[in-house]
Order: sequence, then structure tokens, then C-alpha cells
Amino acid sequence: MSEFVKLWAEIAPIGRADSGGYLRFALTEPELTLRDWFRGQAAQRDMTVTEDGNGNLFAWRGEPWAPGTVLTGSHFDSVPHGGGYDGPLGIVSAFLAVDRLPADRKIGIAAFVEEEGGRFGVPCLGSRLLTGVMDPVKAAALTDRDGVSFGEALGAVPTGADQRIGQMAAVVELHIEQGVALRRPVGVASAIWPHGRWRMDFVGVGDHAGTTRMTDRHDPMLTFAHTVLAANEEARLSGAHATVGRVQVEPNATNAIPSLVRGWLDARAADTATLDHLVDTVLKTATERAGRDGTTLSVTPESVTAEVSFDTTLAARLSALLDDAPILPTGAGHDAGVLSAHVPTAMLFVRNPTGVSHSPAEHASDADCEAGVEALARVLEDLS
Amino acid sequence: MSEFVKLWAEIAPIGRADSGGYLRFALTEPELTLRDWFRGQAAQRDMTVTEDGNGNLFAWRGEPWAPGTVLTGSHFDSVPHGGGYDGPLGIVSAFLAVDRLPADRKIGIAAFVEEEGGRFGVPCLGSRLLTGVMDPVKAAALTDRDGVSFGEALGAVPTGADQRIGQMAAVVELHIEQGVALRRPVGVASAIWPHGRWRMDFVGVGDHAGTTRMTDRHDPMLTFAHTVLAANEEARLSGAHATVGRVQVEPNATNAIPSLVRGWLDARAADTATLDHLVDTVLKTATERAGRDGTTLSVTPESVTAEVSFDTTLAARLSALLDDAPILPTGAGHDAGVLSAHVPTAMLFVRNPTGVSHSPAEHASDADCEAGVEALARVLEDLS
Repeated sequence: MSEFVKLWAEIAPIGRADSGGYLRFALTEPELTLRDWFRGQAAQRDMTVTEDGNGNLFAWRGEPWAPGTVLTGSHFDSVPHGGGYDGPLGIVSAFLAVDRLPADRKIGIAAFVEEEGGRFGVPCLGSRLLTGVMDPVKAAALTDRDGVSFGEALGAVPTGADQRIGQMAAVVELHIEQGVALRRPVGVASAIWPHGRWRMDFVGVGDHAGTTRMTDRHDPMLTFAHTVLAANEEARLSGAHATVGRVQVEPNATNAIPSLVRGWLDARAADTATLDHLVDTVLKTATERAGRDGTTLSVTPESVTAEVSFDTTLAARLSALLDDAPILPTGAGHDAGVLSAHVPTAMLFVRNPTGVSHSPAEHASDADCEAGVEALARVLEDLS
Repeated sequence: MSEFVKLWAEIAPIGRADSGGYLRFALTEPELTLRDWFRGQAAQRDMTVTEDGNGNLFAWRGEPWAPGTVLTGSHFDSVPHGGGYDGPLGIVSAFLAVDRLPADRKIGIAAFVEEEGGRFGVPCLGSRLLTGVMDPVKAAALTDRDGVSFGEALGAVPTGADQRIGQMAAVVELHIEQGVALRRPVGVASAIWPHGRWRMDFVGVGDHAGTTRMTDRHDPMLTFAHTVLAANEEARLSGAHATVGRVQVEPNATNAIPSLVRGWLDARAADTATLDHLVDTVLKTATERAGRDGTTLSVTPESVTAEVSFDTTLAARLSALLDDAPILPTGAGHDAGVLSAHVPTAMLFVRNPTGVSHSPAEHASDADCEAGVEALARVLEDLS
């Protein structure tokens, strides 16, 4: 049994649901268990563990935050019933890569909090706080579905920006690839598409489903449904991605016309102009339909991230080091994307044979994961 | 202050939510509190309280279940954030009507359990069990959203059919009208439209919203959205009612294509042929769209109720007694509709100025409710 298979097996059961997917929301019991496991791994390697005041956890070989340190790692949290690789693969691989490095290298391993936005709604919350992109007081006030705030879960208002991130030599995040474009075990990221999520509140008039005439209705479910189809059509036409994967309905009763349908539009495109056009078109269509349905639409952008181009020189260097590994863009957001504005940053992708992610069916082969560890070790050694 | 206003004020705060609507689900704390209030009202009037083994509660003037008794009443449970009148008005009015009757009349007042289907999914569950339309073992196995079964909530498997319901002289349920057709304070029901609810499970492939190409998707939200719009269009064309007011999504994450979207189609029409055509057309359209989306659809009829024509002679007698009160049909299901197959049954409607129901905005004026009490008393005196 390989070192990878052994270490992977330690965390595989933590937070696993009957679906086969994971419920590892930030600062909930399974994710706290993974943090304890992280501390144990660091201790076995005589690495110093620190926490910033933002919920991010670090293990250091050498002085914490020493200038010139190479930072790697990823996140533990999952989307609801997501796969086990998205996030944890980058942390497990980091510890195994450290094992292969000379003892004098200055390396940091990070576990960023709330990367998915699965609990508090803002993805990359930990890295946004660390880099000062997100206001700590606003972050503290974000609430989960049970009304618990991020500040409560953390036990304090986050401390926010820490300039020392800019003194790292580089950041390298290893992550499972989430599409089918990568045909070799390991690739290098070129860019992250600009992307965002827009909360759409469709408000109508709640009423009895059995007795209200069709002509008297103000049914927000219709406006919502029309918008879902419009988003799909517009994304296809423009070569972009649009998804409505989350819905809340009030009162959500079979025999009641809803008073509110809340849907989230997730939209991504290769460039900002395409994304802006996509979102504008969808929301304009939605507003027109609301006029016809007698409903109203209010839109709240919840997190909109500009295009990220990773450090081109760094990507080329990593590709050359890894036998000309392919360099490819991704539609997925990552902490590395947030950090890239502040420190030279790169990402390694490990092949995903089906491309499926954010699903229990997400998978990477042990051999590819082992190739990922080997690649990460070579990269860290080269950069440190 | 009128007797009605006083008695109504006693129950108005029970189970009221911040929305202004009510959360009075069957056999939960607010509904149990209302049952205690029912027992207290019965005791004040020297009425005997009995429970059948199905969760239904009765108060009797005279021997319980004595042949020739006139049964009235309604239900306490609400849809989520429903109005306060739908159900409880019939029970409060019943106690006040009994106060106006000679002491020798044989009257029963019923509080039927789970009329809305808001907790266990099957509307008119109590009356269906009492009349033997619903199998007690199947009813015991119905679960609420937390996985609690009806059998657990009741503390036993329901006892099922009780033939004594057929020995009642008549059943009269007073209820708030749920449309705008009634222009006088009180009306009489002619019929209940055939209606039902169909659970539609749209199954696709869960995947990452950011990285999955549009052409590679099997997104059940699209099939769902198309079906919502098709149901609305078909209902408009056929003069029927169709609503999708309840949705469940898995995993319901902003950045994940859903693996499952479950929606409930509520459909009603003035006659069975129209209803059947409506539902067939909607489900056919949905299945065709599923083929194009690469998703699948499975449909489960959850409760389908044939057209109910109330006793024509009885309705005419009540109308004549109430100064030629209008006789009108309704699209809403009621326990009276279930009972009508087993005993002569009638319904009285109290005017609803806006027609809004199943919503916090549901309302009837005190004067109209008092007219309802007076009408119910006259009807009960005439029939008993």
C-alpha cells in the first residue's frame, strides 16, 4: 500500500454521508476533526502549527511566515454531498510532498476555511479575509442556514488582512481537475474564468393552489422557471457556463402558490465581457418575465470574481519541470485565485477521468494522485 | 366584543409565526395546544370528548356516535405560514353554534387530523382513515420532513375505518371560502373539483457548476423549469388550475448542478376528463424534455381525489334556509369531500374578500364570521 493510499484512508470516512458524498462544512464537526488530523500530521513532521485569526490553519517547516517560504495546501470543506478530493487532496498531497523534501526547505501547508462557500455563502472566505479582499466585520455577520454567524462559529470577529502573505516566495495549490480537458495525470493552471453568484429573489403573492384563478395569480415560480431556461440558453449561445443549482421556496407547500422563490445564478465565462453580457441578458429577461407574471425580482451579487491569470512565468517553469505538463484554464474558483493578486501563485491539477466534481461520483485514481504528490514535491523543491 | 371575537382571540396567538402566518402542523405542539383548547371548550359545554384511533378528536352533545347525530367541525392544522381561518374557523364556529341550539339536540364537533397534508403529505388523512379510504398501515408509515412517521406521532398504528360515521344524520363543515366567487357573507358548496398532487422526481447527474461544459450536462433543473411553465400554460388553455409550489433540490448548492430536483404538481379542474388531460399533457411534455436534457422523470401520484358532488337536496335545503345563499363549487379539498361518500354532507362557506388563502394574508371579517356562526346554528337546528 502506497503512502498516499495509507494517508488518504485516514480521512476518507470523516464526514461521509449515506450518499457516498461528504458533508464537511467549515467549522462543523467533520471539518474540525480534519483540522485535528492536520495538527497530528504536522506534529509527526515537527512542523509548527499556527492559526491566523480568520479560521485558516497552517503547518510550517521553518519559522512560521518566514519570508521566502513556499506555501502549499488547499481546503477541507465540501459542498453538500460533494466528493472527497476537492480540497483535501491538496492537503494530503502537501504533507506527503514535504516528506520528500530536504529538511532545510521552508514550507508552509495551509488549510483555508470555507473555500466552497457551502456554509456561509461566500466562497474562498478564508483567503479573501487573509488578503484583505473581504471585510472582517461583514464576514463575521454572514450566517449559515441555521442562523449561526461566521463570527459565532469562529468565536471572534476575524482579524483580516495579514501582509505576510505577500512575503511568501510562492503559493502552489494542488487540486483535482474538475473537467475532462486534462488527459495526463498532472497539469498546470493558466487562468481561472471570471465568475460569480447572483442571488435572485422572485417575489409574488402566496395563495391557495386550488382556488386561485390562473389569471389572478402572481406566481414567482413561473418567473424563476423562465429564468432558469433563459440562463441555460444564453450560456450555450455565448460559450459560457450558467447554472441554477440552489433554490429556496416559501412557503414550499404543495397546495400553495409560493410567495417567494429564491434562486442563485452561478455564471462563468472565459472573459469578463462575455460574463457581463451573459448575466445582463439573463437578468433582463428575468425582469421582463416578472413584469408579465406580476412578480418582482431583486438581485444581489454575492461574490463576483474577476478573471485570474496565474503567473505566466511560474506556470511555464512548472510545466517544464513536469515533462511539459499541459497548461489549461479552469471554470472553478480556488483560494489560489484569490492569493494570486498578492503573491506569485500556481496550481497543479490532478486528472479527473470523468470530470465529475461537486458530486459523490468525483474520483481520481490512486496512481494519478501519487503522480500529483511526486509533481508537487518536485515543484516545491524547485521553488524553495 | 362579540362572542366570536372573544373566542377567536383565544386561539389567534397559537402557532403564529413571524410571517403573520401559522405553523400548526398536525400533532406538533401548536396543534396539540389547540386540541387542549378544544377539550376545554367541550368541558365548558358539558360535551363528551372522544378520540378515534386515527388522530381525530370529537366533542359530543348527547351519546358519542349516537345514530342521527349531526356532525360539524373542521381541522386545526395549517399549511406552512398559512392563514388562521382555514380550518379553525369551522371549529370555533361549531362551538358558538352549539351555544345557540336547544339542549336536546344531538351534535358532534370534529377536529380532523392532517387535513392539509402539510406534515405527512396526504391531505384529509384523518377523514380518509375514518372512512376506510386510506390503509392504516400505509398511513402509519408516512413520514414528515424530519423522518418522524405518522404512527410515531400518533403513538400507534391508526385504527382505520369506523362504520358509525355512516349513521350520522348529516355532516356540515363550515369553512372560509378560498376564492372571490362568493359575494355574500355565507354560501353553500355544490361540489369539489377533482384534484390531486403528483410528485415528480427529475433525476440528472450532479456535477460542478463551474467546470462542466453545457453540452456535457444532465441538469434536472432544466427539465423541472420546463415542466413548471408547461403546467401553467396547459392549465390556462384548459380553464383548470396547476401549481408547482413545493420543490426539493439535491445537493442544493450554488456551485453544483443538481443531481435531483423533486417538484410537486398540484392540479385541479372542474371535471375529471379535463384534469386527466391536463396532467397527461404536462407529464408527457416533461418526459419529452427529460429526453432532450438527458435526465429522467418518475412520477408518483400522492393523492388523487375524484370529483365530489355534495348532496344536492341537502345543499338546496341549506340555501333555502339561508335566504337563498349562493351555491358554488370550490377547487379546494376538504374533509367534508371525503365524508360525502359515506354520509349526507354539506359545506358552508364564509366570504373571503380577497380570495387569498394558504397565506398569512388570508382574512375574513368579524361580521362575516358572525354571520357564519348564525348560519351554522340555523342549519344544525334544522338538521338535528
